[in-house]
Amino acid sequence: MEIIRSAAEMRSRAKYFKRSGRRIGFVPTMGALHEGHLSLMRLARTRSGVLVTSVFVNPSQFGSNEDLEAYPRDFARDEALCRKERVDVLFAPGPEDVYASDHSTWVEETSLSAGLCGAARPGHFRGVCTVVAKLFNLVRPDVAVFGEKDAQQLRVVERMVRDLGFPVQILRGPIVREPDGLAMSSRNRLLSPRERRDALCLRRALTRAEALTADGERSAAVLREAMEGEIRSVSGASIDYVALVDDVSLKPVERVEGPTLAALAVRFGATRLIDNVVLEA
Amino acid sequence: MEIIRSAAEMRSRAKYFKRSGRRIGFVPTMGALHEGHLSLMRLARTRSGVLVTSVFVNPSQFGSNEDLEAYPRDFARDEALCRKERVDVLFAPGPEDVYASDHSTWVEETSLSAGLCGAARPGHFRGVCTVVAKLFNLVRPDVAVFGEKDAQQLRVVERMVRDLGFPVQILRGPIVREPDGLAMSSRNRLLSPRERRDALCLRRALTRAEALTADGERSAAVLREAMEGEIRSVSGASIDYVALVDDVSLKPVERVEGPTLAALAVRFGATRLIDNVVLEA
Repeated sequence: MEIIRSAAEMRSRAKYFKRSGRRIGFVPTMGALHEGHLSLMRLARTRSGVLVTSVFVNPSQFGSNEDLEAYPRDFARDEALCRKERVDVLFAPGPEDVYASDHSTWVEETSLSAGLCGAARPGHFRGVCTVVAKLFNLVRPDVAVFGEKDAQQLRVVERMVRDLGFPVQILRGPIVREPDGLAMSSRNRLLSPRERRDALCLRRALTRAEALTADGERSAAVLREAMEGEIRSVSGASIDYVALVDDVSLKPVERVEGPTLAALAVRFGATRLIDNVVLEA
Repeated sequence: MEIIRSAAEMRSRAKYFKRSGRRIGFVPTMGALHEGHLSLMRLARTRSGVLVTSVFVNPSQFGSNEDLEAYPRDFARDEALCRKERVDVLFAPGPEDVYASDHSTWVEETSLSAGLCGAARPGHFRGVCTVVAKLFNLVRPDVAVFGEKDAQQLRVVERMVRDLGFPVQILRGPIVREPDGLAMSSRNRLLSPRERRDALCLRRALTRAEALTADGERSAAVLREAMEGEIRSVSGASIDYVALVDDVSLKPVERVEGPTLAALAVRFGATRLIDNVVLEA
């Protein structure tokens, strides 16, 4: 496995891969890798001849009051996991290699980014779009994989790719869960044992919404109330949002009539977790 | 010469060119081609194996009160000129092929875009950056040429390419002038005979600033006053801006101490013209 630390070197390797006709698969990450990331790498591997993973904790997608400093970092472990997955290139630039001191160009998606996490985290998706656009330009992937756990991010990136015509196919990687149902996340390791148990209410809420929908319930208000009930039953959980939105436009729905994204963001102590499921009417 | 009307077809041609190892040169235009554009094509030709020119009057870079409708269009003539220049691909998409009805992604440069034409035309450079990013992704040029007449646009595009890491080399094409000194522009054809004569004050103002600088004048206020005097001597000219800015940061300077961009925008009737020169101390 090749470890590349500079944008210039990544650019020149990508050029070489392109010239030699190899199909580039790409999994961008913020490190602190877990089984969810590894599943994305395996999916990318099936669709490409050379597999590039990036590890970059992107400062521009964190708000000034958010957990940039606390975000878990463990490069030695990440590197070992990438080797095990037979990653060909691990691209791990420093912040100053991605953002010049006078960086002044931003990519912003203005519709799908507006609600859900975008409402709670102003500027977050601007940071995501900007860094993903830059990584795409440096790595030049044919195919890139994003996880469904970050449902809004996935749809925002897909929209950016469509609108700006990036020559990249986006694949969706299914959510990977712990045996007890908690969606894997780098932030899970920030939870205390108590918070870790409390966090199971996320999956319970989504399962409840799925069961009610399967039984014929179509009212978004009823479904949301049921999900909120599951979360409120846990004293340490603080709701950021519980939403039912159209799966394409991400606009709130009143009734589940087409594919509907049930998404939630809940705080457990200082840690904010998200999870989601797509409900089918 | 191949004429391509759809983004999908352009994308697939670009992929073919890349695979066959040809170096793509690109000159994006809004059509109404003149000798200035042709000089950019000749420059691109010297640096590439296949030459792509686009003709697209980009609605998103016009303000709602600007001259989108009046902007000159003459595709038959543009096509003939491109053939004469041995352009390989003329890419002329329709607006709906570049902007989906629910387009929601924008590329914005926030520092160099702030003053000069950006101050006079809010949203203009956001439109420019967005369409240039999209054209780069569809055409995938190795080298792209932009004219120095649009000095701020050139610097904003260079910054965007640096910040987002586009794998494109930007070349600067020198200003091409009419025999009497007027910088070539598609908008020149909108001038009445009287306005066409009046417009010569632009070049006179810049020549004056150059001569004063060569004589040792360093005060931006004195130079600006001299330039404004040349323009005010013409009754039909209405100043939008006359500016002396640092050639890299585009921030106003008080003294000409390094490379300094002398830039002006002046209205003649309904037509707004720009011109510039770089003063060297």
